[in-house]
Amino acid sequence: MLIQLEQSISEAAKADIIAYIKNIKYKVTEVTTQRAHYLVGIGKSEFDLRPLGQLPGIHDIHRVSDDYKLVSRKWRVRPTVLDLGDGVRIGEGSLSLVAGPCSIESEEQMEKIMQHLVDNDVRLMRGGVFKPRSSPYSFRGLGMEGLKQFHQMARARGIKIVTEVMQVSQVEEMHDYVDVFQVGARNTQNFNLLDALGGVDKPVLIKRGISGTIEELLSSAEYVFSGGNEKLILCERGIRTFETASRNTLDLNAIPILKEKTHLPVMVDPSHGIGIRDYVAPMALAGVMAGADGILYEAHEKPEEAASDGQQTLNFAESARLIRNLRKVYAVRQELE
Amino acid sequence: MLIQLEQSISEAAKADIIAYIKNIKYKVTEVTTQRAHYLVGIGKSEFDLRPLGQLPGIHDIHRVSDDYKLVSRKWRVRPTVLDLGDGVRIGEGSLSLVAGPCSIESEEQMEKIMQHLVDNDVRLMRGGVFKPRSSPYSFRGLGMEGLKQFHQMARARGIKIVTEVMQVSQVEEMHDYVDVFQVGARNTQNFNLLDALGGVDKPVLIKRGISGTIEELLSSAEYVFSGGNEKLILCERGIRTFETASRNTLDLNAIPILKEKTHLPVMVDPSHGIGIRDYVAPMALAGVMAGADGILYEAHEKPEEAASDGQQTLNFAESARLIRNLRKVYAVRQELE
Amino acid sequence: MLIQLEQSISEAAKADIIAYIKNIKYKVTEVTTQRAHYLVGIGKSEFDLRPLGQLPGIHDIHRVSDDYKLVSRKWRVRPTVLDLGDGVRIGEGSLSLVAGPCSIESEEQMEKIMQHLVDNDVRLMRGGVFKPRSSPYSFRGLGMEGLKQFHQMARARGIKIVTEVMQVSQVEEMHDYVDVFQVGARNTQNFNLLDALGGVDKPVLIKRGISGTIEELLSSAEYVFSGGNEKLILCERGIRTFETASRNTLDLNAIPILKEKTHLPVMVDPSHGIGIRDYVAPMALAGVMAGADGILYEAHEKPEEAASDGQQTLNFAESARLIRNLRKVYAVRQELE
Amino acid sequence: MLIQLEQSISEAAKADIIAYIKNIKYKVTEVTTQRAHYLVGIGKSEFDLRPLGQLPGIHDIHRVSDDYKLVSRKWRVRPTVLDLGDGVRIGEGSLSLVAGPCSIESEEQMEKIMQHLVDNDVRLMRGGVFKPRSSPYSFRGLGMEGLKQFHQMARARGIKIVTEVMQVSQVEEMHDYVDVFQVGARNTQNFNLLDALGGVDKPVLIKRGISGTIEELLSSAEYVFSGGNEKLILCERGIRTFETASRNTLDLNAIPILKEKTHLPVMVDPSHGIGIRDYVAPMALAGVMAGADGILYEAHEKPEEAASDGQQTLNFAESARLIRNLRKVYAVRQELE
Repeated sequence: MLIQLEQSISEAAKADIIAYIKNIKYKVTEVTTQRAHYLVGIGKSEFDLRPLGQLPGIHDIHRVSDDYKLVSRKWRVRPTVLDLGDGVRIGEGSLSLVAGPCSIESEEQMEKIMQHLVDNDVRLMRGGVFKPRSSPYSFRGLGMEGLKQFHQMARARGIKIVTEVMQVSQVEEMHDYVDVFQVGARNTQNFNLLDALGGVDKPVLIKRGISGTIEELLSSAEYVFSGGNEKLILCERGIRTFETASRNTLDLNAIPILKEKTHLPVMVDPSHGIGIRDYVAPMALAGVMAGADGILYEAHEKPEEAASDGQQTLNFAESARLIRNLRKVYAVRQELE
Repeated sequence: MLIQLEQSISEAAKADIIAYIKNIKYKVTEVTTQRAHYLVGIGKSEFDLRPLGQLPGIHDIHRVSDDYKLVSRKWRVRPTVLDLGDGVRIGEGSLSLVAGPCSIESEEQMEKIMQHLVDNDVRLMRGGVFKPRSSPYSFRGLGMEGLKQFHQMARARGIKIVTEVMQVSQVEEMHDYVDVFQVGARNTQNFNLLDALGGVDKPVLIKRGISGTIEELLSSAEYVFSGGNEKLILCERGIRTFETASRNTLDLNAIPILKEKTHLPVMVDPSHGIGIRDYVAPMALAGVMAGADGILYEAHEKPEEAASDGQQTLNFAESARLIRNLRKVYAVRQELE
Repeated sequence: MLIQLEQSISEAAKADIIAYIKNIKYKVTEVTTQRAHYLVGIGKSEFDLRPLGQLPGIHDIHRVSDDYKLVSRKWRVRPTVLDLGDGVRIGEGSLSLVAGPCSIESEEQMEKIMQHLVDNDVRLMRGGVFKPRSSPYSFRGLGMEGLKQFHQMARARGIKIVTEVMQVSQVEEMHDYVDVFQVGARNTQNFNLLDALGGVDKPVLIKRGISGTIEELLSSAEYVFSGGNEKLILCERGIRTFETASRNTLDLNAIPILKEKTHLPVMVDPSHGIGIRDYVAPMALAGVMAGADGILYEAHEKPEEAASDGQQTLNFAESARLIRNLRKVYAVRQELE
Repeated sequence: MLIQLEQSISEAAKADIIAYIKNIKYKVTEVTTQRAHYLVGIGKSEFDLRPLGQLPGIHDIHRVSDDYKLVSRKWRVRPTVLDLGDGVRIGEGSLSLVAGPCSIESEEQMEKIMQHLVDNDVRLMRGGVFKPRSSPYSFRGLGMEGLKQFHQMARARGIKIVTEVMQVSQVEEMHDYVDVFQVGARNTQNFNLLDALGGVDKPVLIKRGISGTIEELLSSAEYVFSGGNEKLILCERGIRTFETASRNTLDLNAIPILKEKTHLPVMVDPSHGIGIRDYVAPMALAGVMAGADGILYEAHEKPEEAASDGQQTLNFAESARLIRNLRKVYAVRQELE
């Protein structure tokens, strides 16, 4: 059960509602986000919603039986649209493109990719400064110094930054320099990190776990939302299966399923989803047709020289062509019956 | 190594070529199909192709190191297009739609679905007469009598039939009543059945195995081709993974990968691929954008009353809308850069 | 619902029972096996078993709600033990060992492996004469001639033969020369083959599908049983997962689960289950400890020269050591609390 | 390449060795652990080891081509045995049993389980104080207060504590109260946490990721080792597959594979590995036979009342019986050829 409270509710009225819920043997969690104030009730007994609905201070009340409640579309039917400022929006009504290298490597590299984005009117740039690497001996990113420079250069060009946060202690440190915090596929169930991001007033893009189910992705989003942050984006990036012809198996089934289950925007990452440069473009286009609100992909001036993920990274000519095609395909999607 | 022989080659010239190949320690298999005459050489040693290429009677010669050779695009660069007669073609240059019920149930049911297809200018109908069912107590299809009626009704309306063959003994029995033999996902590695279909002069549509790799699908096609039948279609229909929110995980990555690896047409079955009626349409559209040459899906007048697979079957209104949308999306794909 | 009829039941009494079952809207299937006569009722409505139980001619009646009924342990609590004659039994109370090469290759090869089995008091030999190979260009086995020789040599030494049948037409052909028909992992859902084996009075060993669930394995067994053949053995042989360090992932969880769900004997094939020669022995021993009734593994005089599967095949010294260890471990299992 | 340095090496000698390695274009990482001092060289070129081996200050030098080096058995052939003090050892030569509840719930609960362990001469107790839960509304553990009480009670009874650490900030906080830090299956690739544990002088038990490969588990161990902590234990706990009859698929294949690839001790967690109480015992026994150095399982006075994981938790009678059987089976394993 999900109760949205009036913003002006008195403490006494809230106490009455909580008492009522506890009385029907439900556990109650209070959630205050940037946008609203909720009570989440968890329990199993059947009960009559109507008397509860008549208590003062309640704006809205919904039965939601799934494990995730605040991110459910059963409650909030209208899709969430995030406004990042400067005219950059993510969600229903537009197609968001997020491009950039796997890792930030140097000022020169950033200069070139930003020019490419500006030339193609792309407003969101991805790029890692802390890299999760399965071998301890691999390149682990430029760290905070890199991020600060990334931030400064992006600001100057009206570009918003999407970058991965790997641990709780980085949340505060990175806060002023990012526009969207990204939670990587290895951290989708790092619940402490999700909790910490619940306390932040910046959007969070959560990637699906390498072997995470759709339900688990929604539960991870619920963590951040119930921690107080409504500004969430979900991202399908391929799951691990027995197939070895591709790096991961991009599960585009997840797009229509997520779009029905949640009001949050849903993106697709075709670069990790297939892992092979020549096939990134068709999978990005397929992602749009499956209903995605945005595409996040890897681009680099010289993919063959990239510090990581070069084999799945587009060069600028490929990227520019993809951008044009994505916009055509998105326009057609808008016109379908 | 793959050698295409001249159609007019003499037995003596062929014997010389075979002797040459055996001499470099390659195993040689002779393949005669409806269209041409090949020698497939399997071996590991390095050798010089040129002297071999100068022997008389050789039309063309290619190194192909994959396990599949005759279906490889390394050898035949131009995509294969199948002509089913009456203006029905499958392959590059058009989008083939194949619709119909999971199972043929009655004359009345067929009448209605065929009228729906004719109304929407769809020329290929799917429908099972022998149904593989995991429980021995489930409906197993109408059998040969059903197929004969299916055939007669389809002929009268200019519709081509795609239907599943389950065992060797059915190949001959069904032969005169089908236009395309379908090999189901549980039979993709039924090698005896594939061998038998190699001897047939009708197209064969091979579905990917429930947990079959892309390589295995290509090897299954190689079986039929090396048995003498070049008329092949591959079909992605979802694989088994840990995700339970969908019936299968539709692996659209397979489309661009297959289109590069083989010259054969590639279709997508979104009905089995996601298994949920409301999401069949977006996955079909995504399949087209990923590069599919055709879409095969389940439609029925009243899905809720279908003998099987009702939960993933479209009704006629949904089907008609999907057909219109598929054609719009395919038209846009043709215009992309 | 499962009804075991009296052997002496009259047609009239049987008709009464069938009428009663149809009257409560259950579908009824009559099953006659080598051992008994059953009615399987499938339906959903709740009903009172007692009046049915009082009809004449009923030996026993059980509610079984699973999809598989005849192979369920909910109905037949005592484990099935198969008697192959000459003192060879499979099932509870003994540990069956089945060893031999992947493929029968020559008289000399069979001679050697049979001597090895006799020396170690192993009474069951495995060996393929029809080999399912994913490439059409690989060795496909010696066929019926090989089987006849295999049979003759085995008979002379008191050895029983377990060998794979790949298609319906082989069932009759092979019948007189095999002791146990094996259904391979690619044919677990070849329902026509399962049907045909239902008509045979010889044991059938069914391997779990490459990506088959435990439920599906039980349903495959139900096919054969409902076709009239109660003599069944199930075999875990590893499933396909994302892990590539082993050929398959041997799912020993399946052993205690199957032993509780079904009364049929359950074997383990560690050779395919891990696919690496050095690790076959520990996995065989683990299989016994998990509760297996038998171990089926590959052995060859010179594994490195075997026509197939050499990388997972034990030589005779390794095999002899494994046999001794298996017997020690089985003896301890018998003594556990 | 892995170089173990003499403990007494001079800075100058070390600088010479590093210069030599850089000269052959290898990247070099210096690792100092509780036990020794290493240089790890990463590169691709072929070179002659001998002149390097003659430089002063080198104790030992090995080519190791795997991604993991310090944990590889190619370098350290003798199995690592961890000494936890008070006669508690983990590794080759003994079977370690670790039992206890999923979560620490109360003093009374701990009292009872500790008495059970003392009665059965089990020296290691598991029990979570911080619980990773996929829903934000579930019980998340007693936290540090619970851990302190757990520690005090365990000390008084000579019991060692194995408990999960979930984030970097907890490492220091928990340090004085744990005997073995456990890294859970959702944190196997939380590289910041692994780094932090590299700086600790207490053993770390790393569980395999929910969909982690064997290689990834070894790389995670390499992280901790290269951070300075050699005291490591690996634990197989089941992977995620398509099979739904069990909670996870316990991959016992991993045991012999890990035992050959690494010198570290390897444990099995049958509770999570199968997830069904009745089958925990056979899987634990199978784990021992596959070669495990220890078994970690869940036990509780009243599993049906446990705060979490009750469905896979043994009661004390079941646990005592399992302990006796595990010791019998381990004794037999020691005697096998």
